[in-house]
Amino acid sequence: MTGQRSDARRNYLRILAVAEAEVAAHGAEASLEQIARTAGVGSATVRRHFPTRRALLEAVFQERMEGLCERAHRLSATEDSRTALLEWLHALVLYAVSARGFAHVLSYEPPTEEPSPNGCGSTIEAAGTPLLQRAVRDNAVASHVTFHDLLTLAVGIALATEHHTDPHTQADRLFRLAVDGLSPERG
Amino acid sequence: MTGQRSDARRNYLRILAVAEAEVAAHGAEASLEQIARTAGVGSATVRRHFPTRRALLEAVFQERMEGLCERAHRLSATEDSRTALLEWLHALVLYAVSARGFAHVLSYEPPTEEPSPNGCGSTIEAAGTPLLQRAVRDNAVASHVTFHDLLTLAVGIALATEHHTDPHTQADRLFRLAVDGLSPERG
Repeated sequence: MTGQRSDARRNYLRILAVAEAEVAAHGAEASLEQIARTAGVGSATVRRHFPTRRALLEAVFQERMEGLCERAHRLSATEDSRTALLEWLHALVLYAVSARGFAHVLSYEPPTEEPSPNGCGSTIEAAGTPLLQRAVRDNAVASHVTFHDLLTLAVGIALATEHHTDPHTQADRLFRLAVDGLSPERG
Repeated sequence: MTGQRSDARRNYLRILAVAEAEVAAHGAEASLEQIARTAGVGSATVRRHFPTRRALLEAVFQERMEGLCERAHRLSATEDSRTALLEWLHALVLYAVSARGFAHVLSYEPPTEEPSPNGCGSTIEAAGTPLLQRAVRDNAVASHVTFHDLLTLAVGIALATEHHTDPHTQADRLFRLAVDGLSPERG
């Protein structure tokens, strides 16, 4: 029984390691058959550990998620609530731009519609919502802005720049544009 | 010779009709093999008419493109240059949200990097750039905003809301957010 369990654990970790490499190379559309082949297991074993593509991708991005959560926690202690929110959002955009497939995972999970306590979207939401609420309380961000808006915007910036020759620079421009709006500076 | 040419034309139109239905159903990832099978031609015939997936998608979206171009032309004659630009951009976002695959085509073609005189991106750019230039001249839009920024933003909004339960409503929210920026209204 213990032997079986440690076999399963080894399989899980081997599949996850292969999946990380495949997702880094091919993004969210990485082939599950290829992952099974490279890991030396059957497709059924991959499905037992990761029943859906999304479950697999979420496991792959777990570490990035933890980094974003820690960052949100640190920023919640800083003074300027608008700067804290924007710094965190910018980090989220850059993570999404650099990690192929990460934005795709988030794009499938509008937090208000599919509550999934262990999913990427809800982890991100739990981390970022306090930053938004604080900035709105300080009247530093418009009160009608929801966390879902900000998350969808970050996802959109990452997806729209994915095939550009310099995604980071264009993502930075778009982030700044969306924060500032289209109007000329007043005053 | 004439007979061969009219055969080729018939094949072209049949493939295009099937492709429109397949792209409407499955988006940009529609299967080219399936399109060939349904059209009753070989894959080589599809490739002869449409050497790349992008060429096929561009043909599928040709009519939508023409609608957007006409609209830009009409709006260029209206009085308020900011309203004209925003109305056109909003129409572009809604087109992209409703036509599966359209945003994907645009996401592959940053106009400044891959000049392609017949491509979707350059058609859109030629139609929308005069609207942006007029709004900037009127000091109604910030002068650092490029057409490429606006196109990428529209593409991002469409891609990020594609899997939402109500893409149009969320796309409208995001469009408004990006136009206004995050700050509370002043005054």
